[in-house]
Amino acid sequence: MLQDTLDKIKGPDKKARAEAQIRLDSLTKPLGSLGRLENIAKQVAGITGRLRPSVDKKAIVIMCADNGVVEEGVSSCPKSVTASVTQNFIKGITGVNVLSRHSGADIVVVDIGVDADIQAAGVLNKKIRRGTGNISKGPAMTEKEAVRAIETGIDIVRGLARKGVNLLGTGEMGIGNTTTSSAVAAVLTGKPVASLVGRGSGLSDEGLENKIRVIERAIEINKPDPGNPIDVLAKLGGFDIAGLAGCYLGAAVSRIPILVDGFIASAAALIATKLKPEARDFMIASHGSAEPGSSAILEALGLEPLLMLGMRLGEGSGAALAFHIVDAAIAAYNNMGTFDDARIEQYKPL
Amino acid sequence: MLQDTLDKIKGPDKKARAEAQIRLDSLTKPLGSLGRLENIAKQVAGITGRLRPSVDKKAIVIMCADNGVVEEGVSSCPKSVTASVTQNFIKGITGVNVLSRHSGADIVVVDIGVDADIQAAGVLNKKIRRGTGNISKGPAMTEKEAVRAIETGIDIVRGLARKGVNLLGTGEMGIGNTTTSSAVAAVLTGKPVASLVGRGSGLSDEGLENKIRVIERAIEINKPDPGNPIDVLAKLGGFDIAGLAGCYLGAAVSRIPILVDGFIASAAALIATKLKPEARDFMIASHGSAEPGSSAILEALGLEPLLMLGMRLGEGSGAALAFHIVDAAIAAYNNMGTFDDARIEQYKPL
Repeated sequence: MLQDTLDKIKGPDKKARAEAQIRLDSLTKPLGSLGRLENIAKQVAGITGRLRPSVDKKAIVIMCADNGVVEEGVSSCPKSVTASVTQNFIKGITGVNVLSRHSGADIVVVDIGVDADIQAAGVLNKKIRRGTGNISKGPAMTEKEAVRAIETGIDIVRGLARKGVNLLGTGEMGIGNTTTSSAVAAVLTGKPVASLVGRGSGLSDEGLENKIRVIERAIEINKPDPGNPIDVLAKLGGFDIAGLAGCYLGAAVSRIPILVDGFIASAAALIATKLKPEARDFMIASHGSAEPGSSAILEALGLEPLLMLGMRLGEGSGAALAFHIVDAAIAAYNNMGTFDDARIEQYKPL
Repeated sequence: MLQDTLDKIKGPDKKARAEAQIRLDSLTKPLGSLGRLENIAKQVAGITGRLRPSVDKKAIVIMCADNGVVEEGVSSCPKSVTASVTQNFIKGITGVNVLSRHSGADIVVVDIGVDADIQAAGVLNKKIRRGTGNISKGPAMTEKEAVRAIETGIDIVRGLARKGVNLLGTGEMGIGNTTTSSAVAAVLTGKPVASLVGRGSGLSDEGLENKIRVIERAIEINKPDPGNPIDVLAKLGGFDIAGLAGCYLGAAVSRIPILVDGFIASAAALIATKLKPEARDFMIASHGSAEPGSSAILEALGLEPLLMLGMRLGEGSGAALAFHIVDAAIAAYNNMGTFDDARIEQYKPL
């Protein structure tokens, strides 16, 4: 099923993009003066193939999973926080809850590998296993599990597409996932671990040193093949990262724009892009993470975040916020008047 | 009336700010992880003195005026565009129209000195005069006119405050106003003209050279006193800049947060701040302008824009967009759950 999805992903509709450019240039404003809002409008036109696209049905998929590497002391939070926060998403009191309500987005909470029985009704049970293996001692998961986790993401997004969702975002919850993401990023970008690793939710200097050593050991022991993204994912990643990679592929095959939010999501986006380069054309980077690895990955992806507001909450909170920008871009593109409407020759050079 | 307003402006409510910090730290998230959204919440609490502030009634005041200096060929647009776009604001088809509808903001269009009879019902007629004088030959306006234009802005904002508006933005329309703003900025920041001047709506290399020379001549001929903001404004500014400076003072005295959008607005904000330093505490920079002078002025103000999306439309379009961010910040602050609600000890260090 993964291979079938990869085969079906096609790049943007160039004709729709070109027509969107013509419309943008007919609007009552100096050429290009809406800046990145114009790029968003063109991108969404190219993705959907529609000259007047809608982004009125939004959803954020939040992948929740535990990471075995937490036993190496790489996080300042106890592992139990993954399960607690996963359940809080359903209570509606977290950051992403409030921000997604505010931008009119639904959230879909997925237990793809939390190391606890999640009782909360409303959490989608897609558990591959209760947490990954400790990557500093062996692989996080088998290749089969990695593929299953990716397919889970694809499947969820295709289901949302059938329900009419036309703008997606992603979020994650998994204590230890900046460690797994840094490991994946180091292998896929070829950059030194120390240049990519940050303090996550608040590590000390010592903790940071330890985190770097743990990741270096994980790469040494697992010997992932940088040319094989599934191998890198299975050996160093997590179920959350795998599920998110699936979401990006699912969005591409369903032709829905999808927001990449933060560091963990960008590592997953990089895996999706290594599996199918065209997947990139469906992504919009929402909020830039302060994690040092984030800019390295976004550079590798050729994406620039819409927002840089110093947020480091994760959960997809930056996607919920950036929905407003995408929404506004499409509103301006669809609803501004043209020079014909205005019957003036404004903004024409003398 | 101006002096009376200046006397009445007081700084932020420190107690409310401190209480807002306590609430922020009780929310279910790592400390400080909402980044600049937390700063906005604290700022708005300090401005309003309210622990649960509202920003549900928004308005953008757009000051429209012509600038005599246009006869020096400093703009790529003909002067008539000022009147055309002013009238288009009422038709509802401009960028700021669409974006402000999208963020639920009203717009208030003010003719404070357009060089035409604006017939459109809905444009507030507060014309000081039909356009300023050519600053490269003499002062833009008299000191009396400058004070009247500032008081016009104060008055309009006080009126909106009485109607319950609790979040403000500003916009402007005036061909030639990047020239006047650059001149004001050069004198008030002490930076060389050439380092501040940009291409406005699209000048050629030659046009840019000419613009620099015109501004240098304006400063030389008018000899403004850098220590006297009214003198600088009257000699080099415009009615739009003066009116906007009044809006910032009006917001401060009415204790309403106000978004500073783009280059012209930032020059006006600098004048307001020179008249009363506390006015700065009521300002939020919305979208950063690509005009080179913009960062110099924002640095002088100590403000950092929320958005950098390459927009250069003016009109207050960036304020309309940034309203979403302020709105979301207040929603998160007011509506997120606390650790008590969650009954968990999440995100606490081990």
